[in-house]
This record gives sequence, structure tokens and C-alpha cells, in this order.
Amino acid sequence: MVQPEPEPQSGEDLLIARYFRPLATHPGARALVDDAATFTPPAGADLVLTTDALVGGVHFFPDDPADTIARKALRVNLSDLAAKGAKPAGFLLSLALPETLGAPWLEAFARGLGADAKDYGCALLGGDTVRTTGPLTLSITVFGTLPQGTMVARSGARPGDLVVVTGTIGDGALGLEVRRNSGTAECWRLDQRQREHLLGRYLLPQPRNALAEALRQHASAAMDVSDGLAGDLRKLCAASGVAAEIEVARVPLSEAARQALARDPALIETALTGGDDYEVVATVPAGAKDALMAEAKAAGVALTEIGIIRVDCPGVRFLDQGGKPLLFKKASFSHF
Amino acid sequence: MVQPEPEPQSGEDLLIARYFRPLATHPGARALVDDAATFTPPAGADLVLTTDALVGGVHFFPDDPADTIARKALRVNLSDLAAKGAKPAGFLLSLALPETLGAPWLEAFARGLGADAKDYGCALLGGDTVRTTGPLTLSITVFGTLPQGTMVARSGARPGDLVVVTGTIGDGALGLEVRRNSGTAECWRLDQRQREHLLGRYLLPQPRNALAEALRQHASAAMDVSDGLAGDLRKLCAASGVAAEIEVARVPLSEAARQALARDPALIETALTGGDDYEVVATVPAGAKDALMAEAKAAGVALTEIGIIRVDCPGVRFLDQGGKPLLFKKASFSHF
Repeated sequence: MVQPEPEPQSGEDLLIARYFRPLATHPGARALVDDAATFTPPAGADLVLTTDALVGGVHFFPDDPADTIARKALRVNLSDLAAKGAKPAGFLLSLALPETLGAPWLEAFARGLGADAKDYGCALLGGDTVRTTGPLTLSITVFGTLPQGTMVARSGARPGDLVVVTGTIGDGALGLEVRRNSGTAECWRLDQRQREHLLGRYLLPQPRNALAEALRQHASAAMDVSDGLAGDLRKLCAASGVAAEIEVARVPLSEAARQALARDPALIETALTGGDDYEVVATVPAGAKDALMAEAKAAGVALTEIGIIRVDCPGVRFLDQGGKPLLFKKASFSHF
Repeated sequence: MVQPEPEPQSGEDLLIARYFRPLATHPGARALVDDAATFTPPAGADLVLTTDALVGGVHFFPDDPADTIARKALRVNLSDLAAKGAKPAGFLLSLALPETLGAPWLEAFARGLGADAKDYGCALLGGDTVRTTGPLTLSITVFGTLPQGTMVARSGARPGDLVVVTGTIGDGALGLEVRRNSGTAECWRLDQRQREHLLGRYLLPQPRNALAEALRQHASAAMDVSDGLAGDLRKLCAASGVAAEIEVARVPLSEAARQALARDPALIETALTGGDDYEVVATVPAGAKDALMAEAKAAGVALTEIGIIRVDCPGVRFLDQGGKPLLFKKASFSHF
């Protein structure tokens, strides 16, 4: 009289089994068939935890490829771990799905997520999948580990420290402009490669996890640049009680961004205050700069010195080549 | 030339500072001004992690009070920790807010969340707040701790173990019926108190965290009952490779549920297969039953023996008073 075999399963169970169980390679994920996951922290480790939500039509375009939506959702979280000097350990995914997204979409989504989970050594440990009448909404909570008490905080910058930034700044915000308005690339006289570079940088962040250990060892403060270099650096300075002086000419720009700025110099404000960079801005004591630079080079992560920390009221001063400060209308992206 | 003081802040920063920073009492939350939180696990502990998403119009009524929405979102996660035998440690909140919800709503939401965070010893460690064009969507990731390797899994039930369940079953599903259709309470001849009992049980789960340590010490398997006792127990049996035989007459029902069933005996299916119980179903070796029952009594958690685990093909058999099996149209709630 027992219910017939094979065990009847709900649609939710089947969805999890089909798309997400193959990603749950960590034993603590228990093949996603328990209420919770387990994780045994390494002895002497702190957990570093962060969560980021992405909403269709707000953080990505609803018609962006499913695999890049998944990867972006994971990578924006990984970027936080990178800035804190933590090693990725695992993540949990909450997925609110509109009815319009069917099997092919889910299959591509899971494929992208699985590829990045593997590449970044960050296993899927659990999740929840629900229906929504609204846009696709994803929330990922990621956690990493590092030796106890060694997280790179925002609050450690000291006068005399140098300010460094990874990669290039502004590509994400400029890429969003190109994505929003197809005439933009032509207006900026971008060639095909430059256009694709900017679009790609908006679509898929490149978190700097390869630099995490070097930051942990040498940086006095760090944060990931997600809402614009100007506003994010201002937050770091506020937390540290210091001022930063940035030479705009030293801020690293991609060839595509330089081309856009050559056509419209006012775009420097977009580059410095727009979101979606997912680079790391850090401060480093002068004596540790060479070691950090050498380790960045070994890790294959471009790292550029852009300024210095001063004793002053907390804030950021961006100086042009004549030493004159730039003033921005709005320092950073905010939802509210 | 530094930007003027007081430090200009984005709307998102102000929202976090005003409503959520007062909740971030754990030092690892760093007053919500860093990219990530830290948590130092107790030596020899495993982390137990789980996440649950709630969508307005799906998991709660959009006009439910803001404080109970917040508390429900935290409690459905705490319920998972309770069933696993873990002690709550902290949580991260992702909140996708429609524009219609303003300051009074947020104030009540944060107040409810803070009250439960305090009562359950589960601190707000971080979060993300974003805009959505869709319904209010919350995702909470909660984590707890327990001695390494001692999580109560779904897979540990063995033939001869007794099946026990906390609290009363079916109130949440019956409460939802009452909430959906105002004539229902009258139809079931519920008095005011019975009606409010069922509505309250749907609105605000009572997770059984007070029983967590006793479950960890004595239960062979456990899970929280969120999608209906029948379907959830079937999942436990599938994970354990056993069959459960449940005496329907022993399943604990509230006075209100008994009144409803007296009017409409077919509601037993709603009670046994409907969601939103947030009780714990567990199995316990016969020799440990008395100890578990005594500890449940000491903890003030009602715990009722409802059946036994048998050697059979995995599944659940619900027997009526004549020993005849009940058959259900649908064993549990599923979004898909």
C-alpha cells in the first residue's frame, strides 16, 4: 500500500534534480536533498559572508543570455570576496522565476552557473526556487574563508598609503550606455572590437579573486568597485577617516574607453561615477607597494597606482592634469 | 577641496543606516558599512546553511503586516535550522522593494525583523536592498552551528524508529483557506478564537528552535514540515530508504482544525498535504523516545508520536482508524 515507485516528485524537485543537482558537487550540499547544507570551516578560519540581489530590468537586461545572467549574479558576489582577501568556499542561490522562462533558459542558466562555480572554486551548497509574477530575481549569498582576523576592511587606510585599482575603470558604465542606445557606439566611433569590449564588460564582470591573497597580505584597506570609483572610494575614505587624492590621468582606462573619451571628454564622469566595474580599489602602505605589484603581476591582474591617502576630512579629490579638482553631479549609483 | 561634510550618502546608504543598521548588533556585521560580514565559527563546529525566498502574492498576501512578513521570512529559515539540530548564528537579507513601499512599511518591517533576530539569537550580518518593478521579494540566508558531523539529516531513519511531530499539523493550510475566502470560517462554524488561531498560524510560523538540541541528540532523522506532512515525510523516507506508517488519528490537530474537520472530514487531506506548518517531523530510535519526549516537555514544545518506520519500499502510508490507507490527490505543495 506504499505509494508507487518511482518516487513521485513535485515539479520543484524535478527542476532542482535536473538543473541544479549536477552543480552540487560539494559533499556538504548533500545533493540538494536535505533542508540545509553543511560546511566544515578550516581550523582557525573566519567566514566572510556577503549577499547581492539582481533584478531583471534593473541589474541586467531581461534578454541577456541566461548563462551570463547566472555568471554575473555569482561574480558580483565573488568580487566582494576578492576585495576582502577571502578565498571562495561556497554559495546559496535564491531564484524567483517568471513562468516565461522554460527548460532551455534554465539549462543555459545552470550551465553558466556551474562553469563559474568550477572556475572560481565556489560550490553550489543550497538554494530555493520559487515562482514570481514579477521580473526574474536572483539572490546569491556567497561565503569564503581566511585566517581569523585578517579580512581586508574598508577602514584600514592610513595617510601616506598609496591608492591602487585593478583592471580598467568605466567600461561597465560605458558598456551600459552602448547597450541602451545602439547609436552610441557609432557616435563614439568605436570599432567592432571596442564596442564588444565595452558590452562584454557590462555583461560579464571579471572579479579579481586571483588577487585576493595578495590583497590580504599587503593591502591596508580595500573594497570592490560596483557603484562607481568616486562614490565607492569615498565610502572607503569615510570608513577609514581619511581623504584620497586621485590623479585622473592615472586611472586605468581601456582602449575602448579612451576612444569614447576622445570623442566626448565629459564621459570621464560616467567612467568615474558609473557602476558595474567590479574591480578592486585598495590602499597599500608605501613599503608594501612593490610586493603587491609583483604579486599582482604574477597573478595576471593589472594593478595601477592612481593616488595617495592624505590627512584631511574624509572624502575624495579627483585632480586633472593641471592639479584642478573635478566636481561630479552624482558620485555613485544608487537604487534609492 | 575635499567633498563637503556631512558625508553625502546615497538613498540606499540612508535606507540601510536608518532601518537596518540598528539591527546589526553583531560585531561581524561591521555596522553594515563593509562589503562583507565576518563570522568566527566556534572551534569544532560545522556551519549549517539554508536559504528561503518569499514572493508577495505567492508566499504571503501583499497586504499582510510588514512586521509579520519580515518575521515569516526569517522564521521559515529558522525552522530549517531547528529541524537540523543547529543553533542559529546569523542571517543575510536580500530585499527587492517595489516603489509603493515607503518609510512606514520599512520601519515596521525592520522592527519585526529585529524583534525576531533578538528572540531567536540570530543576528543580521549583511544584506542587499534593491528596487524591483515586481512584487516584494525577500530572500534570507540563515546559518547556524553545531558540533562537527552532528547535523540531523533526512537520511537517518531506520526500521523500528518512531515518527514524531511537533505542535499541530494543518493549521497553516486551513488558515490560508480562511484567509482566501472570508465565508470559510462561517462554513466551518469557527468561533472568533478558532478563526484567529488558524489565520495566525498561516501568518506567522512558530519555528521549533527550542527543540533543536534535543533533536540533535536523539533524532535519527528530521526535517521541517513546510510543504505538507505527507509529501515532506515521503521525502524523508526516500532519503532514508524506508517506509513510514502513520496513524492519522494520532496526528496532532488544533482545536480549530478539529472543528473544521468535524464540519468537513475531507479537510484531512488539506491538513496532511497543505503547506505552511513549519513544524518538525522526526524519527527517533525507540530507546531514545522517552528522553526526547522529556526534553521536548522541558523545552515547552508539544511533541506527538504519530507512527513508525517500517522495512518497505520508500513511501508513506497514512492509516485511518480502521487500518485502511488514505489516498491523496496531491501529496505536497510545489511551485512548479
